[in-house]
Amino acid sequence: MKSYAYLGPEGTFTEAALQRVPEAREAEKVAAGSVIAALNQVRSGDVEAAVVPIENSVEGGVSATLDEIANGEELYIVGEVLVPISFMLVGRPDRPQQLDQLRSVATHTHAWAQVRGWAQTHIPDAEFAQASSTAAGARGLLDDATTYDAAVCAPHLARSLDLPILAEGIEDTTGAVTRFVVVARPGRLPERTGADKSSLVVPLPEDHPGALVQIMNQFATRGVNLTRIESRPTGEYLGKYFFSIDLEGHLGEERVGAALAALYRMFPGVRFMGSYPRAEHSPTSIPAYTTDDAYQRGRAWVQNILDR
Amino acid sequence: MKSYAYLGPEGTFTEAALQRVPEAREAEKVAAGSVIAALNQVRSGDVEAAVVPIENSVEGGVSATLDEIANGEELYIVGEVLVPISFMLVGRPDRPQQLDQLRSVATHTHAWAQVRGWAQTHIPDAEFAQASSTAAGARGLLDDATTYDAAVCAPHLARSLDLPILAEGIEDTTGAVTRFVVVARPGRLPERTGADKSSLVVPLPEDHPGALVQIMNQFATRGVNLTRIESRPTGEYLGKYFFSIDLEGHLGEERVGAALAALYRMFPGVRFMGSYPRAEHSPTSIPAYTTDDAYQRGRAWVQNILDR
Amino acid sequence: MKSYAYLGPEGTFTEAALQRVPEAREAEKVAAGSVIAALNQVRSGDVEAAVVPIENSVEGGVSATLDEIANGEELYIVGEVLVPISFMLVGRPDRPQQLDQLRSVATHTHAWAQVRGWAQTHIPDAEFAQASSTAAGARGLLDDATTYDAAVCAPHLARSLDLPILAEGIEDTTGAVTRFVVVARPGRLPERTGADKSSLVVPLPEDHPGALVQIMNQFATRGVNLTRIESRPTGEYLGKYFFSIDLEGHLGEERVGAALAALYRMFPGVRFMGSYPRAEHSPTSIPAYTTDDAYQRGRAWVQNILDR
Amino acid sequence: MKSYAYLGPEGTFTEAALQRVPEAREAEKVAAGSVIAALNQVRSGDVEAAVVPIENSVEGGVSATLDEIANGEELYIVGEVLVPISFMLVGRPDRPQQLDQLRSVATHTHAWAQVRGWAQTHIPDAEFAQASSTAAGARGLLDDATTYDAAVCAPHLARSLDLPILAEGIEDTTGAVTRFVVVARPGRLPERTGADKSSLVVPLPEDHPGALVQIMNQFATRGVNLTRIESRPTGEYLGKYFFSIDLEGHLGEERVGAALAALYRMFPGVRFMGSYPRAEHSPTSIPAYTTDDAYQRGRAWVQNILDR
Repeated sequence: MKSYAYLGPEGTFTEAALQRVPEAREAEKVAAGSVIAALNQVRSGDVEAAVVPIENSVEGGVSATLDEIANGEELYIVGEVLVPISFMLVGRPDRPQQLDQLRSVATHTHAWAQVRGWAQTHIPDAEFAQASSTAAGARGLLDDATTYDAAVCAPHLARSLDLPILAEGIEDTTGAVTRFVVVARPGRLPERTGADKSSLVVPLPEDHPGALVQIMNQFATRGVNLTRIESRPTGEYLGKYFFSIDLEGHLGEERVGAALAALYRMFPGVRFMGSYPRAEHSPTSIPAYTTDDAYQRGRAWVQNILDR
Repeated sequence: MKSYAYLGPEGTFTEAALQRVPEAREAEKVAAGSVIAALNQVRSGDVEAAVVPIENSVEGGVSATLDEIANGEELYIVGEVLVPISFMLVGRPDRPQQLDQLRSVATHTHAWAQVRGWAQTHIPDAEFAQASSTAAGARGLLDDATTYDAAVCAPHLARSLDLPILAEGIEDTTGAVTRFVVVARPGRLPERTGADKSSLVVPLPEDHPGALVQIMNQFATRGVNLTRIESRPTGEYLGKYFFSIDLEGHLGEERVGAALAALYRMFPGVRFMGSYPRAEHSPTSIPAYTTDDAYQRGRAWVQNILDR
Repeated sequence: MKSYAYLGPEGTFTEAALQRVPEAREAEKVAAGSVIAALNQVRSGDVEAAVVPIENSVEGGVSATLDEIANGEELYIVGEVLVPISFMLVGRPDRPQQLDQLRSVATHTHAWAQVRGWAQTHIPDAEFAQASSTAAGARGLLDDATTYDAAVCAPHLARSLDLPILAEGIEDTTGAVTRFVVVARPGRLPERTGADKSSLVVPLPEDHPGALVQIMNQFATRGVNLTRIESRPTGEYLGKYFFSIDLEGHLGEERVGAALAALYRMFPGVRFMGSYPRAEHSPTSIPAYTTDDAYQRGRAWVQNILDR
Repeated sequence: MKSYAYLGPEGTFTEAALQRVPEAREAEKVAAGSVIAALNQVRSGDVEAAVVPIENSVEGGVSATLDEIANGEELYIVGEVLVPISFMLVGRPDRPQQLDQLRSVATHTHAWAQVRGWAQTHIPDAEFAQASSTAAGARGLLDDATTYDAAVCAPHLARSLDLPILAEGIEDTTGAVTRFVVVARPGRLPERTGADKSSLVVPLPEDHPGALVQIMNQFATRGVNLTRIESRPTGEYLGKYFFSIDLEGHLGEERVGAALAALYRMFPGVRFMGSYPRAEHSPTSIPAYTTDDAYQRGRAWVQNILDR
């Protein structure tokens, strides 16, 4: 049986993401204490894959995820999942209270930031109690020793714990989603779907001011669109950077392969981190002159002259 | 008397950063529960400034910092501070133990990640207990009810709490530093020093694939070097992005002013977030054709023709 | 009374161009033996202006024109004129012949190239006799001593000499036009019309492989479109080049002024050769972010921050 | 026996260029009346190759050469030759004169432009008589009916006609050279020498303002340096352009092949006009990441991932 690690504990948004991975339906699900722990379970072979947040997460972990996949033993991203972010306010099962009676509400810092507007309007007198995750805050309500009155958590957790729901849809921004990735050991890339994404990191030699524009141009001239770019310190010492990049396309496409080969020629430390179907399934639109067919015609034209 | 907020609690690396801000020496120091809380105290006028982590932080907060300065009421970065990252392992004051007796060690997840190598070698049997900050973990050792045996924390905290030091310099990477920023309400920019940095965010209109290269070129053609770039989702919904950028130079320099004016013309939602002395004091080296003097000569040459 | 020099002799296409310059209607018209001679008459003050071919000319002179304006004493282009290129075959006034009787036809080499297709079909047995201009060839028919039977020339000359027209519209490509420029001593630029053009040359320092892309980017980032570019050897020795450039826009436009100031900063030897109305009157369309108004808003936004 | 056409008549600088082509030593040499005529003799198979001026020529022909190779039936440039430009003043063999007795001097307009400074100083009273080539002017001195007293021509002609030399080295710019090309029917490319050049033309679709920067970037990202670029009207009607480009490198190099394949993908009308050894033999220096070896490593790296 396959097994998946995820950023736990049970009831986090990451677990909600894992539930949306079709291949993981029958799999064993292992809660990890941190992104790093989850990824290391993949590396060690304890699990087949891990689900971790990669962007804009409620419970953090984003930088950690990027840095951890970028360094250490090689891993591939093999899929991504979007989870709508919605929050409920839940109370103690023994003594649920009216909103105006709440003195303190526990949740993760990032979650609190996303319901602050609602809280200022509806529970202005309630204090914020920091929890290590939204799930930990909510689960604490089951414990008699807990001193706070309520928690902010994900809908699926509220329901599974059967906690009294004091308010729902309390997020200040409606329609927000968070992006999670499925990470596995390197192997055969997922098939091309026409709506793919690839991730990579490019470590930069020191003292290379024009490197970013050079990298951008290698993509731009081949019609490869970037959906995310970050310069990140390597951690060794500030001032030594790497670029972390997501692009639209699959390494199996000629234009993507050519762009990555070009990066490899310039910066041989480039690390490929996977090609995988985009969570948004809208097909990638690319310039007509960068299709595989166009690439083959271009090569044939040159070869034809050389063969004369 | 001036007052400064910082990402608390007392004893964190952020507090260590605050101690390195000369202007804050005599100031009141207010620990905040989150980056957001610290910044909001600046916005509300409760404090004059706040110190928060901006990059590669031990206790997180980086994405939160960028997003929070980029959104909401306008703030300026007015300075930056580098803090060397070193860790100590501290024990309980009542019953300090030998390393091989330790069963559990508390600290922030990110700190644990940075001493993992040392821990696997020297305390392979000790379990990791998650704390909300390195300071909280260390301070817990003063509490009888605490169940863990030791904590990983910053040297200045170990000393100020007078906790027994079990090991020092236990970080896996030596020489690491973390970057913090001093944030204030918008006002007169700090003077030019010749070794300055500026920060800005550029919200992107949807469906603008070439925007990144366009932005890069506006800087490159004016000899402005970028030290950090990140594309970040706006939070409203994925797929709508902004770019967060640090560049070498001060808005008062012609080349920087011209580049930002160009960005403003293209993307009027651009937000300027301050010009301030770099923590590294090495003067910015710029192409000879982009000095203020060169700019003035260029303008004069054109004007001279027009005045004929 | 004003006077204009032109690339003569009388009856050339350049004279036809001069006839299309409204300001020259009442002026004295002075035929010059070469482009250089015409331009030197402007420099010396003998004439107010000169009309010379700049592109794709029937009687040559293009490279000479560019090189001569680019070097030597400064001159400005103040206007441009398009002349439709059409040819007639004219015979001797004393003994006009049938087409099949013609043994030799005189004209300028370039003109012959443009009627070759017609000639091969209609007068396959006639030999080509080289003339120093189309006008010289035609005028020679008035001379008894002339040995050729016919000439290829411009319609206006055929009519003014009253030569027998053997065939008309004999050009192989219909709809061709040639571009001529009006050149004067440097002075006040012609007013902006919204459909203007500017010309300049940029001498390149040796050993500067990336210079061309740098120059292109200075224009591209400011929304300035180029209508002509040529790298040309300086004549001193090969390998030392200058770029000769025509762009859409008037130096009085902010975007154009900024681009030229940037070039001046990088290559102080840049020579401005005039802003003038385009022969094609269609207004220049420019990106919205590069209007004068956009430039002023961009500058105001920066200044506003600096004035805080 | 091989035969070569050249821009005649005998005695021109183009003939001097032809004498410097080693393969042509034993060949029959055919003087052509124009660049077009010379090239058409190649196309028709009458000769194996032609030598014509391509740059900065004394006797013109440059634009004609470029346009003629760019249009019509395909031709390849297979070599280039540099000829130092030096002029002699020669007199009539029957009655050679002192400089101060000369009343008129014949030569090609372009040659006259290059000795004007000398003429103003040494023979200020002599008038310029236009000749269709330097050789025609000099050869006229052998004819009794000629009315001018002297001619400006190439040293090799002065010597072969045995004309009295009145002055030598009279060119205003010393060290000038002119570039000529050897043109043949398309066939197997000359071998790579490490110091090669390639020529091509790119016809542009109308209304494509950014095309030039796009083309430049395709070369720049592959480390291909351009030595000449010209935008030229197609002749059909102004406003429809093609770019004429010389680059450092041989189509057989991966970086050059990739750049040209990219151009072909974008602008399928691109015309390749040959790869050939540079007249200057200094080896092309290219960025380390664009060697054939680098290209092969880049491709292998990508293929390796895809083969997993």
